[in-house]
Amino acid sequence: MPTRRELLRTGAALLGGAMLPWRVHAADPPPKVLGGDATPGLPGHVVPVVIPNGSKLPYVMDKGVKVFHLVAQKVKREFAPGMVVDTWGYNGECHGPCIEVVEGDRVRILVTNELPERTSVHWHGILLPNGMDGVAGLNQPHIEPGETWAYEFTLRQHGTHMYHPHSDEMVQMAMGMMGFFIIHPKKPRRPKVDRDFAIFLQEWFVEPGTSTPNPMVMLDFNLFTFNARSWPGTAPLVAKTGDRIRVRIGNLSMDSHPIHLHGVQFNVTATDGGPIPRTAWWPETTVNVPVGATRDFECVFDEPGDWALHCHKSHHTMNPMGHDIPNMIGVDQKGVEKKIRKHLPGYMPMMEKGMGNMHEMGRPKNTLPMMTGDGPFGPIEMGGMFTLMKIRDELPKGYDVDPGWYSYPPGTSAYKLK
Amino acid sequence: MPTRRELLRTGAALLGGAMLPWRVHAADPPPKVLGGDATPGLPGHVVPVVIPNGSKLPYVMDKGVKVFHLVAQKVKREFAPGMVVDTWGYNGECHGPCIEVVEGDRVRILVTNELPERTSVHWHGILLPNGMDGVAGLNQPHIEPGETWAYEFTLRQHGTHMYHPHSDEMVQMAMGMMGFFIIHPKKPRRPKVDRDFAIFLQEWFVEPGTSTPNPMVMLDFNLFTFNARSWPGTAPLVAKTGDRIRVRIGNLSMDSHPIHLHGVQFNVTATDGGPIPRTAWWPETTVNVPVGATRDFECVFDEPGDWALHCHKSHHTMNPMGHDIPNMIGVDQKGVEKKIRKHLPGYMPMMEKGMGNMHEMGRPKNTLPMMTGDGPFGPIEMGGMFTLMKIRDELPKGYDVDPGWYSYPPGTSAYKLK
Amino acid sequence: MPTRRELLRTGAALLGGAMLPWRVHAADPPPKVLGGDATPGLPGHVVPVVIPNGSKLPYVMDKGVKVFHLVAQKVKREFAPGMVVDTWGYNGECHGPCIEVVEGDRVRILVTNELPERTSVHWHGILLPNGMDGVAGLNQPHIEPGETWAYEFTLRQHGTHMYHPHSDEMVQMAMGMMGFFIIHPKKPRRPKVDRDFAIFLQEWFVEPGTSTPNPMVMLDFNLFTFNARSWPGTAPLVAKTGDRIRVRIGNLSMDSHPIHLHGVQFNVTATDGGPIPRTAWWPETTVNVPVGATRDFECVFDEPGDWALHCHKSHHTMNPMGHDIPNMIGVDQKGVEKKIRKHLPGYMPMMEKGMGNMHEMGRPKNTLPMMTGDGPFGPIEMGGMFTLMKIRDELPKGYDVDPGWYSYPPGTSAYKLK
Repeated sequence: MPTRRELLRTGAALLGGAMLPWRVHAADPPPKVLGGDATPGLPGHVVPVVIPNGSKLPYVMDKGVKVFHLVAQKVKREFAPGMVVDTWGYNGECHGPCIEVVEGDRVRILVTNELPERTSVHWHGILLPNGMDGVAGLNQPHIEPGETWAYEFTLRQHGTHMYHPHSDEMVQMAMGMMGFFIIHPKKPRRPKVDRDFAIFLQEWFVEPGTSTPNPMVMLDFNLFTFNARSWPGTAPLVAKTGDRIRVRIGNLSMDSHPIHLHGVQFNVTATDGGPIPRTAWWPETTVNVPVGATRDFECVFDEPGDWALHCHKSHHTMNPMGHDIPNMIGVDQKGVEKKIRKHLPGYMPMMEKGMGNMHEMGRPKNTLPMMTGDGPFGPIEMGGMFTLMKIRDELPKGYDVDPGWYSYPPGTSAYKLK
Repeated sequence: MPTRRELLRTGAALLGGAMLPWRVHAADPPPKVLGGDATPGLPGHVVPVVIPNGSKLPYVMDKGVKVFHLVAQKVKREFAPGMVVDTWGYNGECHGPCIEVVEGDRVRILVTNELPERTSVHWHGILLPNGMDGVAGLNQPHIEPGETWAYEFTLRQHGTHMYHPHSDEMVQMAMGMMGFFIIHPKKPRRPKVDRDFAIFLQEWFVEPGTSTPNPMVMLDFNLFTFNARSWPGTAPLVAKTGDRIRVRIGNLSMDSHPIHLHGVQFNVTATDGGPIPRTAWWPETTVNVPVGATRDFECVFDEPGDWALHCHKSHHTMNPMGHDIPNMIGVDQKGVEKKIRKHLPGYMPMMEKGMGNMHEMGRPKNTLPMMTGDGPFGPIEMGGMFTLMKIRDELPKGYDVDPGWYSYPPGTSAYKLK
Repeated sequence: MPTRRELLRTGAALLGGAMLPWRVHAADPPPKVLGGDATPGLPGHVVPVVIPNGSKLPYVMDKGVKVFHLVAQKVKREFAPGMVVDTWGYNGECHGPCIEVVEGDRVRILVTNELPERTSVHWHGILLPNGMDGVAGLNQPHIEPGETWAYEFTLRQHGTHMYHPHSDEMVQMAMGMMGFFIIHPKKPRRPKVDRDFAIFLQEWFVEPGTSTPNPMVMLDFNLFTFNARSWPGTAPLVAKTGDRIRVRIGNLSMDSHPIHLHGVQFNVTATDGGPIPRTAWWPETTVNVPVGATRDFECVFDEPGDWALHCHKSHHTMNPMGHDIPNMIGVDQKGVEKKIRKHLPGYMPMMEKGMGNMHEMGRPKNTLPMMTGDGPFGPIEMGGMFTLMKIRDELPKGYDVDPGWYSYPPGTSAYKLK
């Protein structure tokens, strides 16, 4: 089986030829992307975007037009070690690879449909002719299985945008079909950014022990992801003290997600409607990202360390659990387990003293522990939408190498008195 | 049975007389309002607000006071052809008619209660004496069935405001009782707006096959409306390329709704707290409207076309569906239908390949198809909070006539390659 | 049993000594705090924050360091008369007492764990060394039951911040563990504020008739609180016409809460990321407070009165009710009660005409009426996140005394016509 990178090369090569569909539905773990693989052709002033656990869509030039090829298809995605989900995505990836382009570019995007049902692609937030907007039935016919369609337009804006289906939209987005469409400005903008990350938020319902998301679920989700990875499967974001860091967040789930970054105050600087004027920037430590929108924020750390970055809805930093189990806080459960098991076959005694030991519980196959991830000081007891911003004064091996756990200088840590 | 317009005239005539209650609970389809019927007495610089599928409340003058008459009552409301809901509203309308007035006006608003229980009216966001604020029990007694009360105050602000009950508030708002209270500025404000629309968001739970909303439902709604109409029952918003367009959105539901407009970047320019200073405007393509708030946004299209305007929570652009049915994505259902029907009597095999064909399904009486609405290129597969912004370079018949489907100039549409 | 105030004094005395844990888990009703007890040591220009129904954490000085002592423990909290909840909190309080300090202060905070499981404290939004950030497992070991740990850092910012556990976070926050960490600016800031309030939002699920919150509930909460009190248990906020009033709101629940204030337009002036520049202030009558964030707003009333302050999600101004009961709006229930009771043992006929009489219903022990609270004009029919802003032209007895119901000047109230 070819590696992911080989697939990307193969895919790129196909673009100029017969436009054969991608044939491989990747199940290998997504890469831990720490540094940014530049999409070719970016101006010198641009810092390429880093898509943690994701990839970029390659292109070929055709008479001045950047030609991309998206293949909508079933994709096996590892959310974290031990759990593979049967998602839908593009080009063997879920979510789809990032399209990274430059203001002024003319792009042609071929879309091949390998799904069992029809689809279309809407270019969310992008200014274009109405016939290229991708609302199936309204702006174009649906793209039937096996068909390949072309969209072509010139980019007359810059910002953090998205692509997603606008045909059986509820199902196809719940299955994971979406990707970033990031347009860099043609001319340098101040202040210059040193590190630039992009994270897609998503929530899913996958019945524990199964592998297919249920798109009928509207509210009671049980998996929460950054770039379709759950903690501890999420790659860290690596940067240096003093770096100006941009984080772009996209949300096509069913809920606003308040994304909280420890250790710094940041400014919200852009939406999918474009850059926010500086006079209108809001300082935050938590950016509440609405559905159907993107938010860019920018910050500079003056304290190095391993800083948590996570959704602040506490159930969204958990992996699947049974929301229907009885409340046992403070209840002595000795002797009642057997009785309860008659009515709730999968019942495990727990919660008498809280849930801090849940990471030790057994669980169905292909299901993540509810609270998990080991840190330097024991279990971190998280899941879902959680990762780390690793800030260091020096990164001798560069941004591409995980610097490991932070080493705390003496006298700067909480300490035990008794 | 008198027509809606005759009712409005009758209602206005009654104001100066015996204040007889409105007697007719309209069930005829709401009008498809495209241009704005001006409320009389607006200054020349004001562009009247358009309430798609709604109406304005008439008034009579009494010694310099504009006298309005709201009658709280049961109302049959057609959400879309094929579905009539037993709502509560005002003056035969659900939601209630828009009160459109001018900064500096003195208004007297008579409220007659024809409901089976007591009510009151709160003037949300409006600066007034505490005794006129309408919180029953706190600022005034409840208005008992059969009673008529009067509120009177002078408007010393302008903006997009709302009225709604503050007595058994949860039930009465869930039943649809609310309306816009729009105060135009006395002096012209720049930039001048060419088109001005107002849309109320609401979500409901009506058990499929029945007709009464269930106000006890807190989360799991199944109907989502713009001005108490669901796609394909929603009127389009008609404007011209280059028009400065304002859209005012009110939300008294139980959720934030992220309202997304295709084809343009807009600025959020006001809330129910008043105009946002220009230095603080945020550019967006999606405005997340909180509960208990209004948002105005303004935009100018440079591309004509049929642009989608919708809530971006994908379940909110769906009509009723069974959220409790099993997940059949990828499951071959041949031969199991009968077995499943034993346990789920209404079960229909579906979703094996996605849900793109759901618009073809059978369904209970007085229930909308889940995904519906035909466009020029086939089914649009939407429902709920979805409508179209129809932008044209020319509108030879004016804003009051639906220009039909957009005609795509050659070379500006997505095209099939194979 | 010592009173709450005696406990606070005792606690302070312990700080300099053996750091014995707090031993008393208060169940007496929380105080109705109307004026601000100043934390000692605030600069003269600072108006102390008022925590309605809450308290401040005392400290002792140790060589220029303000030493505080938080004791994590089980706490019995009265949400409103007739309902006591078995929460978790700090120092006999739920939520924990407010830490009120000044920019430039060096603070040492001792944390003793008297819970049945381990914990830690994260200082949300505060700039500090990574080892003091409190994410257990990541930045420090968990604090085991019986242990006392110390955090120490210098405050180099000002604003409205929070503290909460970052160990079994979902459970411990759902049980009520959180508090304000308010840092006043060292130098006076303009405009000067006359009144300064802080309110924590929380939502809970306590099965009617029981007393322990269920932390597994993610969505379908049934109790909604301001500073862990439900209407009619909430203290009013007292101020004068012309006072510049700041309200700080913190939210560590699972939902955004749109907090609406009647009678005034306010500006949102700060978040937990710091002060919002004046050019970026938004006017609102409802501030939608995201999870994991704080919002400060400021306003000046020109109309005296009793103005409602509440969450605008209508189910959040209700106390517990059965969300699963059938919809009886418009249904004649004569004769069917007995039949329904066979299937729903606790069933009470209701809702035939709406729910405005629900405050008269019977209910399980230790459960609040769904809609309750008597005003000067009858039942206010509210619950949960609801309180009053009492604005008076004069307050002869000062801010510390509830001025009673507002007396409406003749001609300023809604009036009955017939």
